[in-house]
Amino acid sequence: MRSIDINCDCGESFGNWSLGADDQLLPLITTANVACGFHGGDPLVMRRTVAMAKANGIAVGAHPGLRDLEGFGRRQMRITPDEAYAMVVYQTGALTAFLRAAGMALHHVKPHGALYSMLNVEDDLAEAVARAILDTCPTPLLYWPAPFEKHALPRAAKAAGIPVVGEVYFDLLYDDEGSIIVERRKTEKDPRDVAERARRFMRSGEVVSVSGKPIAIDAGSVCIHSDGPNAVAIAEAVIGVLREEGVAIEAVQVARKETDRDL
Amino acid sequence: MRSIDINCDCGESFGNWSLGADDQLLPLITTANVACGFHGGDPLVMRRTVAMAKANGIAVGAHPGLRDLEGFGRRQMRITPDEAYAMVVYQTGALTAFLRAAGMALHHVKPHGALYSMLNVEDDLAEAVARAILDTCPTPLLYWPAPFEKHALPRAAKAAGIPVVGEVYFDLLYDDEGSIIVERRKTEKDPRDVAERARRFMRSGEVVSVSGKPIAIDAGSVCIHSDGPNAVAIAEAVIGVLREEGVAIEAVQVARKETDRDL
Amino acid sequence: MRSIDINCDCGESFGNWSLGADDQLLPLITTANVACGFHGGDPLVMRRTVAMAKANGIAVGAHPGLRDLEGFGRRQMRITPDEAYAMVVYQTGALTAFLRAAGMALHHVKPHGALYSMLNVEDDLAEAVARAILDTCPTPLLYWPAPFEKHALPRAAKAAGIPVVGEVYFDLLYDDEGSIIVERRKTEKDPRDVAERARRFMRSGEVVSVSGKPIAIDAGSVCIHSDGPNAVAIAEAVIGVLREEGVAIEAVQVARKETDRDL
Amino acid sequence: MRSIDINCDCGESFGNWSLGADDQLLPLITTANVACGFHGGDPLVMRRTVAMAKANGIAVGAHPGLRDLEGFGRRQMRITPDEAYAMVVYQTGALTAFLRAAGMALHHVKPHGALYSMLNVEDDLAEAVARAILDTCPTPLLYWPAPFEKHALPRAAKAAGIPVVGEVYFDLLYDDEGSIIVERRKTEKDPRDVAERARRFMRSGEVVSVSGKPIAIDAGSVCIHSDGPNAVAIAEAVIGVLREEGVAIEAVQVARKETDRDL
Repeated sequence: MRSIDINCDCGESFGNWSLGADDQLLPLITTANVACGFHGGDPLVMRRTVAMAKANGIAVGAHPGLRDLEGFGRRQMRITPDEAYAMVVYQTGALTAFLRAAGMALHHVKPHGALYSMLNVEDDLAEAVARAILDTCPTPLLYWPAPFEKHALPRAAKAAGIPVVGEVYFDLLYDDEGSIIVERRKTEKDPRDVAERARRFMRSGEVVSVSGKPIAIDAGSVCIHSDGPNAVAIAEAVIGVLREEGVAIEAVQVARKETDRDL
Repeated sequence: MRSIDINCDCGESFGNWSLGADDQLLPLITTANVACGFHGGDPLVMRRTVAMAKANGIAVGAHPGLRDLEGFGRRQMRITPDEAYAMVVYQTGALTAFLRAAGMALHHVKPHGALYSMLNVEDDLAEAVARAILDTCPTPLLYWPAPFEKHALPRAAKAAGIPVVGEVYFDLLYDDEGSIIVERRKTEKDPRDVAERARRFMRSGEVVSVSGKPIAIDAGSVCIHSDGPNAVAIAEAVIGVLREEGVAIEAVQVARKETDRDL
Repeated sequence: MRSIDINCDCGESFGNWSLGADDQLLPLITTANVACGFHGGDPLVMRRTVAMAKANGIAVGAHPGLRDLEGFGRRQMRITPDEAYAMVVYQTGALTAFLRAAGMALHHVKPHGALYSMLNVEDDLAEAVARAILDTCPTPLLYWPAPFEKHALPRAAKAAGIPVVGEVYFDLLYDDEGSIIVERRKTEKDPRDVAERARRFMRSGEVVSVSGKPIAIDAGSVCIHSDGPNAVAIAEAVIGVLREEGVAIEAVQVARKETDRDL
Repeated sequence: MRSIDINCDCGESFGNWSLGADDQLLPLITTANVACGFHGGDPLVMRRTVAMAKANGIAVGAHPGLRDLEGFGRRQMRITPDEAYAMVVYQTGALTAFLRAAGMALHHVKPHGALYSMLNVEDDLAEAVARAILDTCPTPLLYWPAPFEKHALPRAAKAAGIPVVGEVYFDLLYDDEGSIIVERRKTEKDPRDVAERARRFMRSGEVVSVSGKPIAIDAGSVCIHSDGPNAVAIAEAVIGVLREEGVAIEAVQVARKETDRDL
C-alpha cells in the first residue's frame, strides 16, 4: 500500500455545545465526514466546517444520522425504508448546498452511528439508502468499514453501481466477524496501541479481533474518531506510523464528470 | 394583465399531523412553496409534496422558516445574519435534493411566517438571505408580497441581481402601508369577499386597505393560503374570477441556463 | 360487570397541528391519558387539555412517549433503562404541574406507542419505568391492555406494588397471544363491528383474535382511540352498548392518602 | 453582610454534549439553578444534576428557558403570555419530579437567557410567569439580578406575594441602568478583576458600571456562571474574597410549610 486516505467525522458540535477537535484534526486529514444536523451539527456549524475543510484543501462527505439529537444518533430506531431514503436525501442535500456555496462538490456519503449499524444488517433500509445516494450525488461514493462483503448497505451500493471505499479503524476494536465495536460514549485510547495496530495493518493488511483472530481488511481510508478524549494524539500516532512506513496520505480520488463543474 | 401565476404554501404537514389541503390545491395552482422542515414539513412530507407537484406539472419553490416547530415559524426570533444565511442555505439545499431526485429544478425562494416578517424590515438579515439565495439557486428568484419597494429582502435581492416576483393576496387584509396582515392562526374567509377583491384587482391593479385606502399592486403571482379552514373554496373563487376576466393561469417563467440541465 | 371506565389518549395536538377529536370525546369519557410533549402535546396543549378534563369532571393520567415528534412516538428506539426512567419522570412531572395548577391530582400512567410496545417485552426498561411511576405518583396506578400477565411493565409494576388497571380495546384487533395490534397510522373502523365486539365482551368477558380465538380480558377500562378518522362515532357506539347492557360508566377510583390533599 | 448564597446555572449539558464544570462547581456553591430541557439539559442530565446537588447538600432551583436548543435559549422570541406561562409550568414541573424522586423540594425559579431578558421588560409575560411560579411552587421564590425595582418579573412577583432574592454578578459587567450585560457566548474573565469587584461589593454594597458609575446592589446571592472558560477559577476567587471578608456562605432559607413535607 503506497497511499491511503484519512477520514474523520467532523462538524458534530451543536449550537452552544462543542464536540470534537475539528480545528486541530482537519489540518491533519484528507477527508471530512460532516454531520448534517440530525444527530449533530447545525446550519452554522456546517457552514463553518465546510469553510475549514476548504481552507485545509480536504474533501467533504455527508455524514447523515438518525433524527435523535438527545441520543447523538446512537440509538437504533425502527424506521421504514421510505424514512431512511428521505432522511439521507434531506441531510445530503442540506450539506451539498453549503458545499455548492463554497464552490465544492460532495465527495462521498458515510452514515453515522445507529443508522450505520442498522444499514449493516437491514436489506430494505440499505436498498433505500443506496437509492438516496444515487439520487443525490453526482459522483456516488460510499465509505464503509471493511470487510463489508456481508453487510447490507455496501452490498446494495455495489449492486447499484456505487463504488465503496473500505475503511480501517485503529481506535476501535473488531469482533470476530470483522465488525467494529461501536461505543456509545468514546473512551481514551492509548496512542501506542493505536500505532501498533496501524503498523501491523500497514505491513500485513490485517487487524486483530478482541479474541485474537486476524482479520484481513481491504481499506482505502483510515477512519479516526474526532470526539475521543485524545483524538489528536491518536491521529498523530497514526500519521507518524504512515510516514515511517512510507505511505502517502491523500484523499480517495473521484472520477468527476464534465457536467459536475456546474454544480 | 393577460396571465398570472398562483402560488400556495404546501407540504406543511409534519409526521403524524396533517395540515393544508395540498392534494386538492396542487391540481389548481401553478407554483408550490414547499416547507423545508424547520417550521413544518419533514423529509417524508417533502418527498411526497415534490412528487405531487411533479404529477401536477407545477413549479416548486423553497419555503424556508425559522427553526420553531412548536410555533410553526410564526414567532419572531432575534437571529444573526449568519444564522439567517445558514438556515436558508440548509433548507433550500434539502429541498433541492428532493427536486433533483425527482428530475426537477428549484423555481424560487419564498420565506415563511416570522422569517418573512423579519426580512421585511431587517436589512442585515436581508443581505444575508439574498446571498444565501444567490449561493444556492442556479436561477435565483424571490417571491414577495407587492408593493415591496420599501421592504428589506426584496430591496437587497434586487441590489444583488435577483429578480423578484410580486405577490397579491386576496385572503389576507392589507394595512395602509400596503403590507399584508399576517395571522398567527388562520380564520375562515368568505369566498365572495375574496372573489370581489380578486375581481377589483384584475380590473384595477389595486387592493383596498383595512381603512379603505387603495393600494396599487404590481403582482406576477396570486398567493392562496393552503391552511385556511376553507382554502379550496377560496382557491376556486379566485380561479373562477380569473377565468371570467380572461386571465391565463401559468407559472412564472424562469430563464434557465444550459448547464442547469445537469442539476 | 356493573361499571367500567372509558379512557382516551388526548392532548396529542402540537403547535399549529391539530389531532384527535378531544373536544367531542372528553364529554363522553371518564379518564383522559394526556400526552406530555415528547411524541405529541406541547405546554399550551397540555394546559388546555387539563382545563377541558377539569371542565368535564374527568380524571387525568400521564401518557408519556419516546422523544420522537416526527414519528409520533411510534418508532421503537433502543434506549437504556436510565433513559426510560428519566423520560417518564420528566414527562409525568411536567403534566403533574399542570394538574397541580388546576387543583387536580395525577390519576395514572399509561405509556404511549412504541414505548408501550417496548415495555411489553423488555424487563430492564420495565423495572426502570415501574420505579419512575413509584417515584413520581402519590398514588401509583398503571393502565395496560389485558391480559397482561406475560407483559414486562405490568408484571414489574405488580411486583413493585403498583396496581394495574386492565384495558380492553374494541377499535383494535388482537393477535392469538392476546396482544393488541397497534397501527402506525389509524384507519377507519366500522362502528357496528366495534359495537358487536363491545357487546360480546360485556356479556362474555372475551374478545376474539384475528384468527378467531377467544381471549378472556379482565378489564377495568375501555380504551377508545381519539385519533381515528371516526373516533366519535366509535365512542358513541361503545357507549350505546354499555347503556343497553346496563353498565355504569365511571372512572377507576383511586384510594388517595390524606397527605395528597396538599399536592 | 454576614452571610450570602452562591448560585450557579447547572445541568446545561445535552445528550452527548457537555457544558459547564458542574462536578467541580457544585461542591463550592450553595444553590444550583438546573436547566429543564428547553435550552439545555435533558432528562438524564437533570437526574444526574439533582443527584449531584443532593450529594453536595445544596438547594435546587428551576432554570427554565425558551424552547431553542440550537440557540441555547439566548435568542429572544416573540411569545404570548399563555406560552410563557405554560413553558414555565412545564419545565418547573419536570424538574420538581426529579427533586421529588430524590426526596428534595424545589427551592426557587430563575429564568434563563433570553427569557430572562424578555421578563425584564415585558409586563404581560411577567404577570404570566409570576402566576406560573405561584401555581407550581409550594414555596414560591424568585432569583433576579439586583437592582430589580424597574424590572417586569420581579415587580410582578412582588405584587403577587412572591419573595425575590436579589443577585449580584462579578463575572458580568453592568450598564449604567444597573442591568447586567448578558453575553451570547461566554468569554474568559480575569479572576483578579472578579475578586476585586467581589471585595468592593462586600465592603460597599456596590458594583461599578462600564462607564464607572457606582450601582447599589441589594443582593442575597452571588451568581457565578458555570460555562465560562475559567468558571472554577472565578468561583474560587469569589469564595476566597468572601472568606477573607468573614462572610458565611449559605443557601437562602425558605420558610417551608408543614404540608410540604409530603412533597
